[in-house]
Amino acid sequence: MDHRGPKFARLGAKVLEGMKSIFKTRGQVFIYPASGTGAWEAALVNTLSPGDRLLMYETGHFAALWHGLAERLGYQPEFIEGDWRGGADPRAIAERLRQDSAHQIKAVCVVHNETSTGSTTLIGQVRQAIDEANHPALLMVDTISSLASMDYRHDEWGVDVTIAGSQKGLMLPPGLSFNAVSEKALHASKSAASRKSYWAWDEMSGPNASGFFPYTPATNLLYGLAESIDMLMQEGLDNVFARHLRLAVATRSAVNTWGLEVLCKNADHYSSSLTAVLMPEGHDADNFRRIVLENFNMSLGNGLSKVAGKVFRIGHLGDFNELMLLGTLAGVEMGLELSGVPYQSGGVQAAMDSFSNRTGTENNSRQVASN
Amino acid sequence: MDHRGPKFARLGAKVLEGMKSIFKTRGQVFIYPASGTGAWEAALVNTLSPGDRLLMYETGHFAALWHGLAERLGYQPEFIEGDWRGGADPRAIAERLRQDSAHQIKAVCVVHNETSTGSTTLIGQVRQAIDEANHPALLMVDTISSLASMDYRHDEWGVDVTIAGSQKGLMLPPGLSFNAVSEKALHASKSAASRKSYWAWDEMSGPNASGFFPYTPATNLLYGLAESIDMLMQEGLDNVFARHLRLAVATRSAVNTWGLEVLCKNADHYSSSLTAVLMPEGHDADNFRRIVLENFNMSLGNGLSKVAGKVFRIGHLGDFNELMLLGTLAGVEMGLELSGVPYQSGGVQAAMDSFSNRTGTENNSRQVASN
Amino acid sequence: MDHRGPKFARLGAKVLEGMKSIFKTRGQVFIYPASGTGAWEAALVNTLSPGDRLLMYETGHFAALWHGLAERLGYQPEFIEGDWRGGADPRAIAERLRQDSAHQIKAVCVVHNETSTGSTTLIGQVRQAIDEANHPALLMVDTISSLASMDYRHDEWGVDVTIAGSQKGLMLPPGLSFNAVSEKALHASKSAASRKSYWAWDEMSGPNASGFFPYTPATNLLYGLAESIDMLMQEGLDNVFARHLRLAVATRSAVNTWGLEVLCKNADHYSSSLTAVLMPEGHDADNFRRIVLENFNMSLGNGLSKVAGKVFRIGHLGDFNELMLLGTLAGVEMGLELSGVPYQSGGVQAAMDSFSNRTGTENNSRQVASN
Amino acid sequence: MDHRGPKFARLGAKVLEGMKSIFKTRGQVFIYPASGTGAWEAALVNTLSPGDRLLMYETGHFAALWHGLAERLGYQPEFIEGDWRGGADPRAIAERLRQDSAHQIKAVCVVHNETSTGSTTLIGQVRQAIDEANHPALLMVDTISSLASMDYRHDEWGVDVTIAGSQKGLMLPPGLSFNAVSEKALHASKSAASRKSYWAWDEMSGPNASGFFPYTPATNLLYGLAESIDMLMQEGLDNVFARHLRLAVATRSAVNTWGLEVLCKNADHYSSSLTAVLMPEGHDADNFRRIVLENFNMSLGNGLSKVAGKVFRIGHLGDFNELMLLGTLAGVEMGLELSGVPYQSGGVQAAMDSFSNRTGTENNSRQVASN
Repeated sequence: MDHRGPKFARLGAKVLEGMKSIFKTRGQVFIYPASGTGAWEAALVNTLSPGDRLLMYETGHFAALWHGLAERLGYQPEFIEGDWRGGADPRAIAERLRQDSAHQIKAVCVVHNETSTGSTTLIGQVRQAIDEANHPALLMVDTISSLASMDYRHDEWGVDVTIAGSQKGLMLPPGLSFNAVSEKALHASKSAASRKSYWAWDEMSGPNASGFFPYTPATNLLYGLAESIDMLMQEGLDNVFARHLRLAVATRSAVNTWGLEVLCKNADHYSSSLTAVLMPEGHDADNFRRIVLENFNMSLGNGLSKVAGKVFRIGHLGDFNELMLLGTLAGVEMGLELSGVPYQSGGVQAAMDSFSNRTGTENNSRQVASN
Repeated sequence: MDHRGPKFARLGAKVLEGMKSIFKTRGQVFIYPASGTGAWEAALVNTLSPGDRLLMYETGHFAALWHGLAERLGYQPEFIEGDWRGGADPRAIAERLRQDSAHQIKAVCVVHNETSTGSTTLIGQVRQAIDEANHPALLMVDTISSLASMDYRHDEWGVDVTIAGSQKGLMLPPGLSFNAVSEKALHASKSAASRKSYWAWDEMSGPNASGFFPYTPATNLLYGLAESIDMLMQEGLDNVFARHLRLAVATRSAVNTWGLEVLCKNADHYSSSLTAVLMPEGHDADNFRRIVLENFNMSLGNGLSKVAGKVFRIGHLGDFNELMLLGTLAGVEMGLELSGVPYQSGGVQAAMDSFSNRTGTENNSRQVASN
Repeated sequence: MDHRGPKFARLGAKVLEGMKSIFKTRGQVFIYPASGTGAWEAALVNTLSPGDRLLMYETGHFAALWHGLAERLGYQPEFIEGDWRGGADPRAIAERLRQDSAHQIKAVCVVHNETSTGSTTLIGQVRQAIDEANHPALLMVDTISSLASMDYRHDEWGVDVTIAGSQKGLMLPPGLSFNAVSEKALHASKSAASRKSYWAWDEMSGPNASGFFPYTPATNLLYGLAESIDMLMQEGLDNVFARHLRLAVATRSAVNTWGLEVLCKNADHYSSSLTAVLMPEGHDADNFRRIVLENFNMSLGNGLSKVAGKVFRIGHLGDFNELMLLGTLAGVEMGLELSGVPYQSGGVQAAMDSFSNRTGTENNSRQVASN
Repeated sequence: MDHRGPKFARLGAKVLEGMKSIFKTRGQVFIYPASGTGAWEAALVNTLSPGDRLLMYETGHFAALWHGLAERLGYQPEFIEGDWRGGADPRAIAERLRQDSAHQIKAVCVVHNETSTGSTTLIGQVRQAIDEANHPALLMVDTISSLASMDYRHDEWGVDVTIAGSQKGLMLPPGLSFNAVSEKALHASKSAASRKSYWAWDEMSGPNASGFFPYTPATNLLYGLAESIDMLMQEGLDNVFARHLRLAVATRSAVNTWGLEVLCKNADHYSSSLTAVLMPEGHDADNFRRIVLENFNMSLGNGLSKVAGKVFRIGHLGDFNELMLLGTLAGVEMGLELSGVPYQSGGVQAAMDSFSNRTGTENNSRQVASN
């Protein structure tokens, strides 16, 4: 396909428009032939100048990676320490912003869904915290592992830059990433002095207006993206979110029954797209993961950096349903048995119970609303 | 691809040879662009003459279909009645053959694995029965749902024509079917007076010798077949059989725990590739299947003809593993709950137990040997 | 996909209905998991009784194969000899039918487009010949290499059984074949005494009515067929036919310019889907084909049986356009040079000329109308 | 696939090693989930500091884009003007470097094969020019449209950073790009002060050593890359280069015959991967391209920026052979006719002649050696 021809332009226009519906924004969306890390970089270099201060929140490994990236790029990111067991605390953010009467902090950066911990940050509350502090900082949110799996509202929650990637809720291979951008962020980009070219929004806007891109796009993934958007719209975003919530509730029922602990301690912050589980003291999570892989050909997520060897992660996002989850949970439960980890059996049964009676689902519908 | 060119010839030679390993034969294998029903027809029209008598055994729906096909084709198939709850009884076959002192019966036809009932016929014992009766009848065996899932030995068990298809253990779409053929069957085909052309072995043999076919082959499926043969050989046929046995044992553990009944009553005849389950009196299996489909997007096999509405069938063959089975069994167990069918919970747990302790597997290794 | 479930039924209904549009019939269409040879057999065994007389016409290799198949199946096919250089002669057919005052001939069988010679039979004229002879014989037509490439009208031309396959104009892999069937043929099938089961129309009709098949269908090819039908309808059948005619006209321009001879001598019988070309005396067509294959990685069709070594064949059907044809013709022209075959250069140029001026196309629009 | 697991590590190691063979280097290769523009940026930001001077050469549109990118990133690129009708002039480069006695120029950047003009720069001679000037500047070369189509020797030619992409000679979709890196470039990267993170070589080296990547790789494209490398090695790189040369020679024969002018004026600089053709005065190239697209469904490359409307481009790289080229050239020749552009017919014929007699190929074997 000729990426300078009329057929391509129709595809380009379709996916650019479709992604606005996914982000729930009327603003602009930029698509990069890059993985999510690139979209992190794009969010910063388009809006900031060298030496700018940022406020970031240590929700886990990926927040720490983003923090490191900001440092490498020459910004001064302040890091509110976290215990990796919940989402960002809006009060801590509000407090820090109130101290910044000089408005030196140019952006607040949080991860919506920490893939390393299974904790979610309530973005609406972060927005409220910034507003209450009367602070002009931009709000940037990483939704790499939540977009199209959990409810997300770029415009309503007043987010300035949302970062996303192709390989999770969009059910594609990795290789595309996104910035959804508010008017305020676009305005900031006019005076942002950071050097950039590949990531530059201003070079994208012109060609995008007619469905094109300023350099060679990842054509095949864009075709796939058009399909993914169609599939999500056909199922209905609300149904997609409800499905992921059901899967998450069932997973936590299993974990509780096993007598293991969900890493996320704050029930309001539970993730719908993955659950991280703490291993009992004295038991190595990676040894357990190896046993599961060898016996059941299933690859569980590993604990990253601070929680390496201490947690394993169960993904339940994307093109995933109840029976696939139950197979997964069964692999975990049998792996616990084979690994000699102390546990109570019945986890899979508990997950099944949560699917076959309605009350489980209703109890948890609260969470969606409260987000 | 030019199916008259040298590249195709290499593919043709490879799959013809590879299928011999799968059938465990040194004889000829014929490949038809047709579904399994065509290979049933081929087995008969190549070896028999109009009006010939056959001895068939009513193991279930597919045996009955084959019987009907034989009648339509102008043969006189005698049908030993069965209760659909086990494989063929070798003693009944032996007894009938001993009565046939005039050797009017030209062939004994049995289904190795009845897809409608989940019962297996012990082919080695059928061979022995024919031999003990000193009867010259050909032995024809349908392995459509067992080949490459359960142990099968065309040469060692003295089978004359084995019928198979692409869509089960060979993990391909439907559209290819097979005859594996003994010297004795080939000899019989010289004088068989049934009219045939598409199915005629004698027109196949010549072109097959150099990797070609007498008419347009289903090229794409042959490519897939070459891949399937490689995959099976890489896993090792014995490992493939052991895997299916493990899955079947676990399935029966679940069924027993639920308090339901496996349709197959004879433990020596349990199928490794699928399990048919009886619904309790007063509960409609198709209603149950509909509830499972609507709630969990899982399609269980239906009861066919005599057992319509009375049984449902759980397939566990082909590219299938422990966790996929547990997801399947969970769908069944939750469906029982939702349908108001009386059952004991714990079936999935029992299946997990059978996977996570070694004894289950060892107990059942007996069955492989006894076949 | 469960071929007994509701989703499959929608697919089945769609392709059965769509194929009626392709055949231009309101009658029934039967779809076999088989190659075209199977559909030849199906046409005969459903409508005839053992020993029935047929009138067939030797247009080339495939007509001869069909004749041989009829003999093997126990019919008495009479063969009107042909020189392989044109379609069937309606007058010869009429003459023979007039002699058959006892109406012993039960069917007239002709090949619409002889793949071995590139000659077309004008089916409308054959119909007229049968009518003028006041003969009740069924008319059976093989359209394996013409359907969806050249105009074909099952109902308007009064054809009783049309035979087709998936791998030419329908642009699919081989593995599906078809019978389109008139009321008269269906009526004949009620009393036809030939033994059949796999091919039996009467077992198909019931399940087909609700989108199902009496035995396992070739599911993947049926998905492909639904796509092919959509593509053909989107381009428009008349445009598809016009495209193939343009390609054929250009091919013949090239052949004439080279000073070679098109095998088909009757301009009214030129095929739109392929062109067979005679090699000059003393030059082996297969040696020439080998040189083309080795030098340009292009596989030309070989001469079959009577014309082996004497002709090569250029296919120009299916998903094929002007530039692909010109590449093909260039390979032929360069191959002639490399093989030392006497020829005049300029063939590709002539083909280009036929594409770039309108008159060529208009001159030939006559042929479509006259068919 | 788990991109942190052992299977992935084997894939990663394979493609990293394979790409070294393609670049003909023993140095390191870095792979980005990005298009080629990203690899341009990576080459600069890893080796340079803000304000650094570069010497770039205006061979055409892509050289100009790279120049613009360098400016945006805060470097001071000097641009040796070119007429877009040949590769870079090594003498001009040598001359400029000799003037730079203070060695302020940190890098010389040239495009090996200008996609916008079809002109090649002789990299060995540029290397010689730098050496003769005794200048320490790094040599950076863009091979986006030449790698794996034309001979390229990273080590032998003393290149410090080679930039490449997946979508041309590697026959993949766009989405991967590459830096091949010399020891000298790696050393320069230790002190380069430009801000970077996504593109940073130093974060790649560690994970790469064991087959991993510092952030999510474009897994599907890496699978494809492994296949492409295998295909190229099986054909043999020298054969791949010879094939492209044959195609280019034939293309130029056609252009000359038409009486049109190849944009590249220097025969030593002719590209093997594409040919740009000047339209006669008064004829719009884009109108011509539109006519070709509408009539023959073929998309020719357009003239970019300075040569917009004045040239069209014929690509002949990647998975392309003689007959595909002849079809392409036929589309051009017929398009010239339909567009009323003055031309001499016989271009396709001339291209065919160049393929069917040996002398054409031998004459041009000189070019390979001289590069």
